[in-house]
This record gives sequence, structure tokens and C-alpha cells, in this order.
Amino acid sequence: MTPPRSTSARRRRSGCPIASTLEIVGDRWTLVILRDLLNGKATFSDFLASPERITTNVLTDRLAAMERDGLVVRVPYQERPVRHRYVLTGSGEALLPVLQAICRWGNTHVPDTWIPPEAFMRRTVPDPVPASDGRRR
Amino acid sequence: MTPPRSTSARRRRSGCPIASTLEIVGDRWTLVILRDLLNGKATFSDFLASPERITTNVLTDRLAAMERDGLVVRVPYQERPVRHRYVLTGSGEALLPVLQAICRWGNTHVPDTWIPPEAFMRRTVPDPVPASDGRRR
Repeated sequence: MTPPRSTSARRRRSGCPIASTLEIVGDRWTLVILRDLLNGKATFSDFLASPERITTNVLTDRLAAMERDGLVVRVPYQERPVRHRYVLTGSGEALLPVLQAICRWGNTHVPDTWIPPEAFMRRTVPDPVPASDGRRR
Repeated sequence: MTPPRSTSARRRRSGCPIASTLEIVGDRWTLVILRDLLNGKATFSDFLASPERITTNVLTDRLAAMERDGLVVRVPYQERPVRHRYVLTGSGEALLPVLQAICRWGNTHVPDTWIPPEAFMRRTVPDPVPASDGRRR
């Protein structure tokens, strides 16, 4: 697992944990790609095939940002041509409760939304290992 | 409380509750304004004063979208010149668990983020009243 890149290096707008997190995942495509990764999708063409029809240039851009922010790592699975699969890091996977909270709100407040599989809604992420500075990675 | 406007009227990309919700609150400024509203801020100048320094035109645009989507209502509190306060609807307030999940992730995975007041993290929203179609408003 790759530790997340510090976002302190960028000029953040504030130390608010909500505003700071949204600088990483505030783009709606990022959370849609995370949804796909949490549901077992892993390749560029997997993500392209999703019903929201992300465009290839937005997908390329979002995956690069997610890699830079330590949410995914790229694993080569084929040479000539090189192809990669994307694997969630611990911090990427730890966004599951955010997606579950969004799902609950959507199912309650947005008409005609699909009910997600119960397995997705009940899933939990393992507790992260505490780091020496008291924060968890 | 204003019932949320149906987003079915817009061309939604899919019925996925995550993707559909992000079409409403996938903009990071919307969630930052919601954070302020949940913390007692209510006026245009309150939101402008936040440390993230939203610009007036983005704020005007986001508040209009939030009103259209039924997350806030505008209440006049002064005439000549007319001034409004923004009040969260039930569906706007129901986004609290999404913001709490974002806070938890940010405090764990983004360095140097503020720890929110315990009262904010422990707060719960009242259960919405079931509507006749079985969905809740």
C-alpha cells in the first residue's frame, strides 16, 4: 500500500477536514471511479463501460490525480501493449463509508435511484494501523 | 420544508444513487456551504467570510443550485435592501452523515486537518417522515 501523498504540498484553502478532503475527492467522477473500484472493476475499459459514460480524457485525468493522491496504485498486468489495472490503497478503500452515506441519502432523497446490493451497504473497511504520529494511514 | 425538486427532469447519467447524488452535491463548494449551514451560518456574507474564500459569483451560483435542488430555502430577513438568510430543508440537513464521513476520512488520511467539535461529529438528524410512495423526503 502506498501512503497517501501529503496534500500540504499543494496550497490548501484551509485545514478543515471537509474542505481538504473535497480537494481530493470533491470531483464527482473521482467518487464514481471509486464506486467502480469498490465493486471489483479495475481496468481503464471497465471504467469506460460504466453507465455514466465518462470520457477517456476525463478518466485519464482523474486516474492520474487519484494515483498522485495515493488513492490507487497502477499495476501492470500485460506487456506489449502495456496495460494496467488499478488497485485501491488502504486510504482509497477507507472512502467506502463516504460512498455508503451518499448512497443512503440518494436512495432517500433522489427519486428513482437503484437500491445498491446489501453486501455493498453492509461492508466495512478494516481499521487502519495507527501511525507513530497518532494519525492513521 | 420544501420537498426536493425531482432531478429526473434533468437528464441524469444513471440511476446509481451515488452518481445521482453527486449531480446534486458533487461540487465541492456545495458541501462546504452545507458545512457552514450545519454550523449555524445563514447569510451570503457569512459564507463569504469562511476561510476557503469562495468568490461571490461561485457562491451566487451554488446557492441558486441548492435552492433549485431543494437543499435550502431563502427567507427574507430585511427589506430595503432585501436580504435573505438561507435555511436548510430536511433533505439538506440529511446530508450531515455524508459530511461526518468525509470529516472522519480527512482527519485520518489528510495531514494537518482540524479536529471538528465533538458536538458536530455526534449530532444526528431526525428520521425523515416516510412519504406515501415509500421513499422518504
